[in-house]
Parts: sequence; structure tokens; C-alpha cells
Amino acid sequence: MESQSHEHTVSDARPIGVFDSGIGGLTVLRELLKRFPNENFIYLGDTARLPYGTKSAQTVRRYSEQNMKFLVSQDVKAIIVACNTASTQIFESNFEGRPVYNVIDPGSQLAAQKTKNKNIAVLGTRATIKANAYETKIKKIKSDVNVFSVACPLFVSLAEEGWHDDPITQQIAERYLSDLKSKNVDTVVLGCTHYPLLKKSIQKCFSSDTTMIDSGEAIAEIMEQDFKNKKIMFNTEKSDSDLIICLTDIGPQFETLSLQLLAQHTNKKIKFETVAVI
Amino acid sequence: MESQSHEHTVSDARPIGVFDSGIGGLTVLRELLKRFPNENFIYLGDTARLPYGTKSAQTVRRYSEQNMKFLVSQDVKAIIVACNTASTQIFESNFEGRPVYNVIDPGSQLAAQKTKNKNIAVLGTRATIKANAYETKIKKIKSDVNVFSVACPLFVSLAEEGWHDDPITQQIAERYLSDLKSKNVDTVVLGCTHYPLLKKSIQKCFSSDTTMIDSGEAIAEIMEQDFKNKKIMFNTEKSDSDLIICLTDIGPQFETLSLQLLAQHTNKKIKFETVAVI
Repeated sequence: MESQSHEHTVSDARPIGVFDSGIGGLTVLRELLKRFPNENFIYLGDTARLPYGTKSAQTVRRYSEQNMKFLVSQDVKAIIVACNTASTQIFESNFEGRPVYNVIDPGSQLAAQKTKNKNIAVLGTRATIKANAYETKIKKIKSDVNVFSVACPLFVSLAEEGWHDDPITQQIAERYLSDLKSKNVDTVVLGCTHYPLLKKSIQKCFSSDTTMIDSGEAIAEIMEQDFKNKKIMFNTEKSDSDLIICLTDIGPQFETLSLQLLAQHTNKKIKFETVAVI
Repeated sequence: MESQSHEHTVSDARPIGVFDSGIGGLTVLRELLKRFPNENFIYLGDTARLPYGTKSAQTVRRYSEQNMKFLVSQDVKAIIVACNTASTQIFESNFEGRPVYNVIDPGSQLAAQKTKNKNIAVLGTRATIKANAYETKIKKIKSDVNVFSVACPLFVSLAEEGWHDDPITQQIAERYLSDLKSKNVDTVVLGCTHYPLLKKSIQKCFSSDTTMIDSGEAIAEIMEQDFKNKKIMFNTEKSDSDLIICLTDIGPQFETLSLQLLAQHTNKKIKFETVAVI
């Protein structure tokens, strides 16, 4: 046994905890399920208190801490903040002994890496844009870039209404993004986890070779590195655990949307639970 | 003194408490300020937990009770539930000794009274429409009417984005309401307190002689009667109290919107406070 364990990494079967205010974070979970099929996941959607994007920094911080405490109580090995608004208020890389991944750092790194002409657009909720976190972070990585930030408040409602590739969504995107036309951006950060659902409509507002940075893909890259560096340990044991989706409010439409978004990306059985996080 | 008080009604200077999940209820407060300029008001906007329209019945009930308790702690003489979603979960006409006015009963009464061809449309959030409260209530008053209910989930976001009389709002209204074209309705209940802000766009989807039922107007009618019946007492003393707007979250955009909506309808000084209701 001793000699074998030299060859093997210690396996850690504890789940990875992912939270968001609602369904947006499922676009992140979807990427993580694709990239790390062997891992166990628990997802928390704070649907009783969504959206976070219109709330104050203090309130978003308080809710986020409560969510992280809930995930710790579920014995997660890492915490993914799959919500950009919450990420603007998470300044720690560790919470009660678990590594914490926000979505802003990975998105910023990927954007700084991908841009060639150094013109980057950041789209987000009013709260995310106001917090200015992407611009600050991107300029820390690459100081000589131009960052153009645009709040798109209706995008979350359009994503939740299911109007993903739709002429009305297209017009709203055109209105929000028209000022960007003259900026010659080659990289667009989808700075809200709902926005990948509207990717087609957003992409049409830019030239076809513009790079779209999706938080889920960005976070999966960073986690991949941390698995390799052994900052977190893979689950190397066979697992047939269910994928647990905890919601703070009962709502059949969230369950339906969750199944639509995830079913094709995992073989796990998806199980819903209603939980209190306060 | 004794002989004088025969002539006079007993005055009650305590404020009337009004609550909503956010700014929508200000359309109700606006009507009450116009109709009862001598009264004192305290408004509670539960902006930390808005919107209610996507939340479950249980959660909406719990939040509403907490809001009513807060208003009672402010010694109000009556409680106005200026939120349709909350009104679907308020079954009492009295809460801790104060009369409670929901918006659904007055809106239903006015609609039943105004319709001539007995075809009524009810527009609301997903939660309000699902609760079916208007249809049930209207049919109780007038059993031989047709009620066509339509959920318009994006209207609240459009109202809060300030796109009130706007070609995009117009198109979204047309999409939601297109099935009503063939129903020949002569009366439309704006079954969400945000919707009066979009009245122009909604009106354009119907013939110009269609009656729009606004919750604020409907509730003011009913209260007028209760003042006359002495179910509640007028404030007959001169009052220079401020109009107090309590919000459960800090948010400059709510303060700006509140001032825009109310300033022209009152001479009172408007004062904002951040409060906790849990």
C-alpha cells in the first residue's frame, strides 16, 4: 500500500461547491462538468434572494458569506463563486480552509491573454460594472489595454425568460452595445454568468472573429492548473454520487431550466433540494 | 370641547403604511398622496429581496408578514399591500389590529364594474398570474365574465430600466399581448404596480377606448369609502411630517426613481432610511 501511494495522488472525493444567485452559475457548472467528469459537485442557487446585480455591495457580501458557510457545512473541498456580482465582493482566496475561486480573476486573465489589439469590452450587471473589478484586474495584468465597460441590466431577465437567440434580444443587445462599435474591440468579457446563454445575440453585435470570454471556460482553465499544482486534489475514485442542486426557494421553472442546461453535459442523476442558508 | 367633538370626527395622525418589493408600489403611493394630501405616509420598499414575482408563495408570504410587522412597529393606522404578488398571499383584512388593503380586491371590483362587454384581461407577473387571484375574485363579483390572464415577466425589468414609452417595450408588449387581439377585451387590469409606468406602451396594444385599471386608483377609491364609513379615521390636524421612504437595501437608483415618481405629487419633504425587516 505504502509503495503504491507514491505513484498516486491522494484522492479527495468531497464535492466542489458552486454558488450563484440563480441559474446563471449553471453555465459555469456545465463547463466544470465537461472538464472534470470524475468530480462530485454541489450547486447552490440563492433563488429566494435573486438577483444580486441590483443590490448594494454590503448586501451582496452578506448573502455571499451565508452561501459560502452553507457550502462549507456540506463539506466541500473548494468553493466556486459562479456569480460575477458576488465575485466583486469576495476578496479572499480561502474561506474556512477551502480555496475560493471567483469568476473575475480567471476572466480577466484570459481576456488579457487573448487580446491582440488591446481593446477589451466588459459586459455585466449594473453592480458588476459599478464595482469596476474587471477593469482594475485586467489593467493589473496588462497595463496598456483599453477596457470599455457596459452595463446590460435587461440581459439577466431575457436569459431567464428563455429569449436566448431572439430578434428582440438582438435589438436590446444592439442598443446596449452600439457605443462599442467605434472601439474596435477584439475581446469581449461576458461578465455575468447568465450572458453565455445570450452568446449568439451578443456575438452578432461584433465582427465574427471577436473572442467571447465565458466565465465557465475561464474558471475551468485556472482550476485545471490548481489540480496539476495539487492545490486541490482530484477525485480518483469511481463515484456514482448524484449532482445536488440546492435552491433557497421552491420554483419549478428553475428545475426545468437546470435540467435543460445540464442534462446533456453529465450522466449524473440530478437531484433538487430546497435549503435555508441564513 | 364636548359639544364640539360631536361635529368633528376623531382625528388620527398616525401614518398609513404602504409596502412593496421595490419601486412599483410608488405608483400606488402617488395616487394616495393625490387623493389624501392631509395624510401621513410611510413607505417600505423591500429592495434587498426584490423581485417577489419570481418567488414561491411560501417565500412571498414570509416576506410580506415581516414587512407588515415592520410597519406595525412604526405605529401605522392602516397597511396597504402595494404589490400584487404579495397581495396574492395576504388573506387577512386585519393585521395586529390594523386594517389591511391588498391591491387585488379593489382592482377586481373596479374591473367588474367598468366592463361592458364582459371581456377582461389581467396582466401580471408569473407569480400573480399563477395564483389566479384576479380571475377568482372578478368571477366572484360577476360570474358571467371572461377573464384572460397573461404573464408579462419582462415588464418589471423594463419599468426599472426606465424604458417606459419605448419602441422595444412596445414590441415586447405586442408579443406578450398578441393572443389577446382576438378576445375583444374592453377592460385591462394592470395587475402589477410597476405596469402603470408602461401604460402608454400597453395601451397601444389595445383599441384607444379600452379601460386600463390602475391599482393605485382602485385602492384609493376603496379607502375613500372606508374613510367615509369611519373604518379608518382621517387626519384632520395640520401635519408637516416628512414622507418617509424605508428601503431594505441601499441603492441610489431607487432614491432617484422615487424622487422622479413622487416629487410632483406632494409638497412633503421626502426622507430615505435604510431598515432591516427580518
